[in-house]
Amino acid sequence: MFQNKRLLIYAPDEFGRGHSKTAEGVLRYGRNPVVGIVDASRTGTCADVIGIRADVPFYPDIASALAAGPEALLLGVAPRGGRLPASWRNDIAFALRSGLDIISGLHEVLAADPEFRALAEEHGRQIWDVREPPADLPVGNALVCGLSEQVVLTVGSDCAMGKMTASLEIEKSARKRGRNPIFIPTGQTGIMIAGFGISIDRVIGDFMAGATEKLILEHGPGHDLILVEGQGSLLHPGYSGVTLGLLHGAMPTEMILCHEPSRKFIRDSTLPIPPLPEVIALYEAMTLPLRKAKVVGIALNCFDLDEEETRRQIEKTQELTGLPTTDVVKFGADCLAEAIDKARERR
Amino acid sequence: MFQNKRLLIYAPDEFGRGHSKTAEGVLRYGRNPVVGIVDASRTGTCADVIGIRADVPFYPDIASALAAGPEALLLGVAPRGGRLPASWRNDIAFALRSGLDIISGLHEVLAADPEFRALAEEHGRQIWDVREPPADLPVGNALVCGLSEQVVLTVGSDCAMGKMTASLEIEKSARKRGRNPIFIPTGQTGIMIAGFGISIDRVIGDFMAGATEKLILEHGPGHDLILVEGQGSLLHPGYSGVTLGLLHGAMPTEMILCHEPSRKFIRDSTLPIPPLPEVIALYEAMTLPLRKAKVVGIALNCFDLDEEETRRQIEKTQELTGLPTTDVVKFGADCLAEAIDKARERR
Repeated sequence: MFQNKRLLIYAPDEFGRGHSKTAEGVLRYGRNPVVGIVDASRTGTCADVIGIRADVPFYPDIASALAAGPEALLLGVAPRGGRLPASWRNDIAFALRSGLDIISGLHEVLAADPEFRALAEEHGRQIWDVREPPADLPVGNALVCGLSEQVVLTVGSDCAMGKMTASLEIEKSARKRGRNPIFIPTGQTGIMIAGFGISIDRVIGDFMAGATEKLILEHGPGHDLILVEGQGSLLHPGYSGVTLGLLHGAMPTEMILCHEPSRKFIRDSTLPIPPLPEVIALYEAMTLPLRKAKVVGIALNCFDLDEEETRRQIEKTQELTGLPTTDVVKFGADCLAEAIDKARERR
Repeated sequence: MFQNKRLLIYAPDEFGRGHSKTAEGVLRYGRNPVVGIVDASRTGTCADVIGIRADVPFYPDIASALAAGPEALLLGVAPRGGRLPASWRNDIAFALRSGLDIISGLHEVLAADPEFRALAEEHGRQIWDVREPPADLPVGNALVCGLSEQVVLTVGSDCAMGKMTASLEIEKSARKRGRNPIFIPTGQTGIMIAGFGISIDRVIGDFMAGATEKLILEHGPGHDLILVEGQGSLLHPGYSGVTLGLLHGAMPTEMILCHEPSRKFIRDSTLPIPPLPEVIALYEAMTLPLRKAKVVGIALNCFDLDEEETRRQIEKTQELTGLPTTDVVKFGADCLAEAIDKARERR
């Protein structure tokens, strides 16, 4: 929907301060050119904060960024408290009046807001609420197993463990190995990065698998490796249903397990995370009988560990599971892309 | 919402012809008085068609049933093709004008229909779309394991195998054994029977477990046996996500497995149903580590088999699984209620 448009990322007073995951994901992996970041608390460029993209400067407000020629404003922060702040409202209206489209991952549907809708119409602009699923989704029916392409799903011992990042790093490594992969996004940041996708956790229960299936059938063919972004965890007491809908919709040929060694309990709960071999067995048992799939590699998220401890955790995990293991952010995903290639050769 | 109201069931030309599952469920198990059934193709009473309720006569139309004093019209048929037929539209409008509330399980939200909404307001009537989930549902967080009450969930080898019926027959048998059970409905027919509930398959993915949890926490306490209606199947390629959300929201202490011996494949698919011991192992493996639960009995649906073959299937299943087995419609659920009691004693 916004392919190739020049983006201005909106992260007022928040960039790199814990709530700008979306902004950082788009800067790290996005396909669109980015002309700037709105954050009056920052000076210099993106590289000063997250060590990449020295070409993306900070601006104190939208008005001063207009000369850089943005075509769309991407809301890159989850507002604290979940409600749209009043200052954001003014800025979004200003952006629409200045001729920018809006890309939003907020819970609130901006396109349904009377003020924004009127402004968008008046100025011929589009508002893309990436969380809003399309209408008329089908019920899943195991159709992906009719494709001959390799389908790799990232799964997790818990939610928020870097499944999107693992899929995107595997995409990079696979491309280096001569594959022609496609990343299939299933959450808001992934959708903003790739420019398409469905936020599966916002889909009505009966259609989650069908929505996943539809995404893969529409975008997968023509690629020899379909990398599906996983969501949640089969072990999460709130999100597990989404995870299983996605697993049965995607019908992967292989899975990559994401795990955070420091996390001992499911987030915000007293549920212990079982040993990894049990987690792996659970995912493998839950794949549909028409296409049983194996976990073929592990992506550890060691963001909170130093390099020595990270290497120790990787080694320990390899010994425990017998599977190639890496921290994709620190050491890349080459060993996972290799494991995926080998799995294809075995079939 | 419609507790104690006198119902008129609407099933024009369809009663007992394959699409009136809702009407039949309400007649068999409902708590409300029923004054009649609208079906011009039938004469006599309900007993002439499904062998129960000789006190419920057929009427050719709504007008002729008004003298019987109905307070609400319950739409008891899923219309063919899924769209609201034009003749239904006229009849629903007539019912509202005649002072009846409307209870609907259609996909279309009748309360959002401008004509029906205006009529309901004008005549002071209510429209209850039972499939519409409430707003502000929480994310599930394994809260049910904080209750000391026994929680029994019906699960299935496939969808549409009689999970609601099994739960309701167990409720009857448990009451005979001196228990004080409550049936927690999670689908449209169950909701119409009990007068409350949430259609979990219509809930947005992230909130399915939370919706189940909320239902149990609100209605369960004060009862010594909480019987939760299951949905779908962990093996169903389209609905499995709903099933897992419900399983993790309900956090059962025990499960009853529903199965149809004649069904060899998941409905509308080429997915074979595995042997029952594998199905049982899968459900038990997927219960959360905080409260692992066992399948303690099996409800076979042998509607298509004669009595001799039904008894043979029951015996065969008992041998295969070592679990008490019955067809709850043909032989009642006493052995399942007994197994549930025994499981409580063991804890």
